[in-house]
Amino acid sequence: MQSLDDSRLLVRIGAAVRARRKECGLSQHQLALLSGLDRTFVGGVERGERNLSVITLHQISKALDASITLFLQDK
Amino acid sequence: MQSLDDSRLLVRIGAAVRARRKECGLSQHQLALLSGLDRTFVGGVERGERNLSVITLHQISKALDASITLFLQDK
Repeated sequence: MQSLDDSRLLVRIGAAVRARRKECGLSQHQLALLSGLDRTFVGGVERGERNLSVITLHQISKALDASITLFLQDK
Repeated sequence: MQSLDDSRLLVRIGAAVRARRKECGLSQHQLALLSGLDRTFVGGVERGERNLSVITLHQISKALDASITLFLQDK
């Protein structure tokens, strides 16, 4: 069962992915292509709605040329 | 499809979980109880065989009183 704390983590990850994607000047579609994911899945990740796996987050981080830890910083 | 790079990530996460668990003086069984996971699943994570979700890794990090980023450091 997903706790409030867990939901906050997903929202935080999503916001960090969106911020980094925009920094890179990429659309969700382009990020999806680069990371081998579906565009609607990327949208769900950015909205904090997806409990993604560490490998999927790793693929996103490689596509955004960032360390995976960037998306998990405790702000 | 899981690349070699992805497999290395899982092995790295597993080794970091095991090291932190031992630092805390916990058995796999105790970590499983604390994080609400199955003991065999914890064993699989430590062997780098599980593509766990970020929430599951978050639950493990809370049980081990560590930041989730500890398990994702690029050594």
